[in-house]
Amino acid sequence: MSIDVLQNRIRKLKCPIVVGLDPTRELIPPELLAECVSRLGPGPEALAESYGRFCRGLLEALRKTVPAVKLQSACFEALGWQGVKIMQELLAYAKKLGYYVLLETMRADVGHIAALSAQSAFGGLDFGGERVFPYPCDALVLNGYLGSDGIKPYLPYVKENGKNLFVVVKSSNKSSSEVQDLLSGDRVIHTAMADLTLRWSTELFGSCGYGEVGAVVGLSSPAAVQALRKRYDSLFFLVPGYGAQGGVAKHASYAFDRLGHGAAVCASRSILGAWREQAGTDYPAAALAAVEKMKKQLESYVTVL
Amino acid sequence: MSIDVLQNRIRKLKCPIVVGLDPTRELIPPELLAECVSRLGPGPEALAESYGRFCRGLLEALRKTVPAVKLQSACFEALGWQGVKIMQELLAYAKKLGYYVLLETMRADVGHIAALSAQSAFGGLDFGGERVFPYPCDALVLNGYLGSDGIKPYLPYVKENGKNLFVVVKSSNKSSSEVQDLLSGDRVIHTAMADLTLRWSTELFGSCGYGEVGAVVGLSSPAAVQALRKRYDSLFFLVPGYGAQGGVAKHASYAFDRLGHGAAVCASRSILGAWREQAGTDYPAAALAAVEKMKKQLESYVTVL
Repeated sequence: MSIDVLQNRIRKLKCPIVVGLDPTRELIPPELLAECVSRLGPGPEALAESYGRFCRGLLEALRKTVPAVKLQSACFEALGWQGVKIMQELLAYAKKLGYYVLLETMRADVGHIAALSAQSAFGGLDFGGERVFPYPCDALVLNGYLGSDGIKPYLPYVKENGKNLFVVVKSSNKSSSEVQDLLSGDRVIHTAMADLTLRWSTELFGSCGYGEVGAVVGLSSPAAVQALRKRYDSLFFLVPGYGAQGGVAKHASYAFDRLGHGAAVCASRSILGAWREQAGTDYPAAALAAVEKMKKQLESYVTVL
Repeated sequence: MSIDVLQNRIRKLKCPIVVGLDPTRELIPPELLAECVSRLGPGPEALAESYGRFCRGLLEALRKTVPAVKLQSACFEALGWQGVKIMQELLAYAKKLGYYVLLETMRADVGHIAALSAQSAFGGLDFGGERVFPYPCDALVLNGYLGSDGIKPYLPYVKENGKNLFVVVKSSNKSSSEVQDLLSGDRVIHTAMADLTLRWSTELFGSCGYGEVGAVVGLSSPAAVQALRKRYDSLFFLVPGYGAQGGVAKHASYAFDRLGHGAAVCASRSILGAWREQAGTDYPAAALAAVEKMKKQLESYVTVL
């Protein structure tokens, strides 16, 4: 099952890190962007091309160190179709290089719309016998506010095609408390969401003991991470909020079990923008160094067995 | 302010209907699709082209009857960049024809990602002095599960550029109850979301009396529509779930105030697929007839003054 693929890659590389390929204009080295603009003229195409070159450079530099990458679709969609085209190419390239690939769409849709997205990302589109996969990936990151209707259309692909879902339980931003921490009976709302997430995993567990439908558990509240880990010992946690968003290794470590399994920590801007902190713009080397540094920080608190 | 633009168009046309341009393969007349395939070969490009032609035909047929259209981004994104390109063209074309245009992305993002989407849809991207608007629209439909951080980046554009937001309060699907109807203190969660939505409208009210940040209130629970209308007399309601999803005119009427203001009812498949219910495939005429029929159904319960 697919959650085993993720866990096994993490164990093999001893690196429970997911690098978020979330490019923005500010994260692109100026000379790289300038080259693209000089060739294509200013506009979405050149910026998208710079995102593509930047991310391909990162994918190549990090392949022996990082088990998984996550693409934030909004970063690419913001440029229009030119950005989406590059995103599609990057998903395919990341898969080709052997990464476990997540696509974060953060959508919450009614059933018939969710079915379209599930087919597009997981099942493929059928064109006269030829199957096209616009968004090749291993997992989608989704929002569960609409309940089961918005998640169930994805589950056949989880069961039959070895795909995973990660549902936002507790997000990494400060105002996550406004809705997610409201108390309902003896549960907070994000616990209710975790209960649903566990239900969606029913009969879908990897041999690593974790469900094929995981939970996004951000570092906005370390106490919440601890409480969730204690209560849900079979939910795999995808942990955003590290680095640029303020999360630290000690708090991230709360997401792991005693074997250092069951979680992966996401970082994006602190890795992608690492080149800005040093002389020169060897951004792949800077990113690799930033990953190694983050890995060491985590190792002070977590040992992946 | 922009919510006045929507309300005034509804009043002028006496038609509180938003047509959802949510194309799927099954909704495209076979000969239209076949023409596109014969020209472009089977694949995403031909299907996207058929979506474009289909929706342009609808936009032209409905322009004197329907005040607003809503594009569901997932339908286009499902095809990959070719679909997104067509969606961008359709947004621009709908704006050109004078429609109030909504884009439903259903996303819930952390602040710095929401800021990118806000800029892309509302503010435009700056390329060496030239401003590009990838997704020209009047309003976005968003998910509020992440709280204020995910909404606030859009508010400057609401205030300064005359844009609107619609936040999913109570969705149109049956399982919306799983999270949205959980009780928290004296409120259900979707009421907590409506309270937040009202807060995001602070100081942003049109002269029609409604806030520039509206609420999506689906027809999954008629009692919820009634209760929400009673409690929130200044939230404009976007009402999905009519027709194909099971909602009826009587229940939709609960969303309106005594003047027949403050709400717009969405319909998609029942309009787009109307050509399948009759001989021939004059889909624009069939869609227009379906809109007229829906308008009459609503008029039994709502009079737009």
